[in-house]
Amino acid sequence: MEIADQVIATCRKARDASRALALAGTEVKNEALRGAAAALRRETEALLAANREDRDRARRQGVSPAFLDRLSLSRERIEAMAQGIEQVMNLPDPVGEVMKKWQRPNGLIISQVRVPIGVVAVIYESRPNVTADAAALCLKSGNAVILRGGSEAFSTNKLIAGLVAEAASLAGLPPACVQLLESTEREAVKVMLQQSDSIDVVIPRGGESLIRTVTEESTIPVIQHFSGICTIYVDRAADEDMAEAIVVNAKTQRPGVCNAVENLLVHRAVAERFLPRVAKRLADLGVELRGCPRARQLAPGMTPASEEDWDTEYLDLILSVKVVDSMEEAVDFIARHGSGLADGIVTADEEAAVRFAERVDSAAVFVNASTRFTDGYEFGFGAEVGISTNRLHARGPMGLAELTTYKYVVKGSGQVRE
Amino acid sequence: MEIADQVIATCRKARDASRALALAGTEVKNEALRGAAAALRRETEALLAANREDRDRARRQGVSPAFLDRLSLSRERIEAMAQGIEQVMNLPDPVGEVMKKWQRPNGLIISQVRVPIGVVAVIYESRPNVTADAAALCLKSGNAVILRGGSEAFSTNKLIAGLVAEAASLAGLPPACVQLLESTEREAVKVMLQQSDSIDVVIPRGGESLIRTVTEESTIPVIQHFSGICTIYVDRAADEDMAEAIVVNAKTQRPGVCNAVENLLVHRAVAERFLPRVAKRLADLGVELRGCPRARQLAPGMTPASEEDWDTEYLDLILSVKVVDSMEEAVDFIARHGSGLADGIVTADEEAAVRFAERVDSAAVFVNASTRFTDGYEFGFGAEVGISTNRLHARGPMGLAELTTYKYVVKGSGQVRE
Repeated sequence: MEIADQVIATCRKARDASRALALAGTEVKNEALRGAAAALRRETEALLAANREDRDRARRQGVSPAFLDRLSLSRERIEAMAQGIEQVMNLPDPVGEVMKKWQRPNGLIISQVRVPIGVVAVIYESRPNVTADAAALCLKSGNAVILRGGSEAFSTNKLIAGLVAEAASLAGLPPACVQLLESTEREAVKVMLQQSDSIDVVIPRGGESLIRTVTEESTIPVIQHFSGICTIYVDRAADEDMAEAIVVNAKTQRPGVCNAVENLLVHRAVAERFLPRVAKRLADLGVELRGCPRARQLAPGMTPASEEDWDTEYLDLILSVKVVDSMEEAVDFIARHGSGLADGIVTADEEAAVRFAERVDSAAVFVNASTRFTDGYEFGFGAEVGISTNRLHARGPMGLAELTTYKYVVKGSGQVRE
Repeated sequence: MEIADQVIATCRKARDASRALALAGTEVKNEALRGAAAALRRETEALLAANREDRDRARRQGVSPAFLDRLSLSRERIEAMAQGIEQVMNLPDPVGEVMKKWQRPNGLIISQVRVPIGVVAVIYESRPNVTADAAALCLKSGNAVILRGGSEAFSTNKLIAGLVAEAASLAGLPPACVQLLESTEREAVKVMLQQSDSIDVVIPRGGESLIRTVTEESTIPVIQHFSGICTIYVDRAADEDMAEAIVVNAKTQRPGVCNAVENLLVHRAVAERFLPRVAKRLADLGVELRGCPRARQLAPGMTPASEEDWDTEYLDLILSVKVVDSMEEAVDFIARHGSGLADGIVTADEEAAVRFAERVDSAAVFVNASTRFTDGYEFGFGAEVGISTNRLHARGPMGLAELTTYKYVVKGSGQVRE
């Protein structure tokens, strides 16, 4: 079969499967997930063998050690995948929830009911655990999923997806609820991204270039997960101990993630006291500081920040530091340089907090807390599909509910329109 | 200036204006709308003159009388536009609403707050009233708008948009809150649809080919308003008087709109009694009936329905009629032939109603009511941006709330992540 025909067939099967899956009860979906977790554990040896195949091929292609690590499965990672699936199983089923209900003057009763989106395509890079994660989240929320992992992890992903599909089938669901795109050719993705009749949403997870390419080629709506340039502004009315703890946490607790802080702004009124202490503390923790001229005067040892620094997501132990004259300057800075993911203020001034939260247009705005809380688990969603940098449909941390849409059920007693 | 540069400049101005508009209070936005309505009334003569120019040009190009009618302004239509703006002014402001608020075990208080989407581009065809409508809805919901109407209505649209922008400016808002794309070249739209940094969402309003073209060319999310192939299923347990009233209403009250019914399915158990009476009533009202063989046997005078008929949006006094053996067959028919906009069942059987509402995957599912209620006003939204056939972000009737997104405001007392 031609690649295009194969992809189109896969997409159509997903659409058909999604109809049955949308109607499946919570127990059936949970049984599928329980079976999938058990299958991963049972097939640990086979998974390790498939993964070895992938790693050998990748090694021959000369990938980096970091890449190889992301690609690798171990017994522990397989167990973690199985546990991840069980966690999703234990979450409440979002489907069927009545989100709103009201009555019209003519007696019509309108209910807004949560339903699955339908068919979700997930395009991701080398980590094979995304295969299990995405499949579990989509199953639980009643969505058929088409997975397209990195070609380097093909054997591993194929086995994982196959085991989940088999478990779905044993629970009485169509196996096409979970499919891996069979071809690793670029053309296969291109064709998939045109199947707007069969696929409802595309979620690319990975680097910026992957997301840009998918967005450009897709005629299907894309939920983007761009990365984050987060800023923390230490206000003139900040509690300095709190500010220090928050900045240190946001920078060093896990520097390689999108909700870590990259830019620190300090109000000039507190800069003289605050900057030297925070600079010392960060330096002790191995953070390189890049400062504006005023910051460098107050806390020697910083390297000069270039204009580019304010727009850089370091994902590393580096922090840019700037002294500002007002909260307004901080807000403008964030509008110009931030990525709209997560930004914060540290202040004891209630009014300043309110103004900042109103004016900063980011998915999450923090008052006196670390930006690192921008996360589905930390928000209490129990699972995380990702952190959307879109403004439509879902913004910020996405849980199961964000994998659903709604329909209106309108009940009448014979009403007609005048 | 090159067309592309001009378009890019327009988009950037919209982005800048959106920042101020997002922060504008309800009173300021209402003052802008009040001023806009007054300006339309005050400039009635100028609007009629601009419209005359457009009509003369269109007439020379040989457009159809129906097209010319849609393009035409009259004193009454100008007054209706002004009143439409005032209605939007009187609606509650959606911006700032706290949609949800909860506390985490660590003390963080998370609020989900409604905010404007940002910059909305509306692409539409000949009716100039969309210019006023879309501008008012976007202003009220705090979104900057870029309008791109049909080239035939350019002079009229330019004047309307200019008057609204002037009113916004007099109220203290940036005039670039409301802009009309200055160029009527196709290239201008092409360039606009690539400005994903400046524009957050594109709403095309018009025929299917317009929507398809926009969707294919846009790298910005598109909210589609495809048309409707609506089906009503008359169940074996239907109250036949009610069923007749609903079918007649859904077909004849306004046949040219997307929520009018196009397919009628009748359970075989009631077909013998119900079909002749509804067929007679519809025929008396001038409706042409196209029936399946069984339907034609029971109610003579129908023309034969072809396979194509089940997939056709007539937007006219034509109705396809089919006898079905079960509700399941009706549900399958709707999945295969419907457009997912609005479908209904008439039944006195509660259980059948629930099963139908669960199984039919349409934006609106009606039980014992006319599909014609699929409408923002009828739903109680007070205004209508359109009826989304997307599954993401907004589904079905869109009011002001559907022109918003949200952000999370997270308040802490120094929390850091462990």
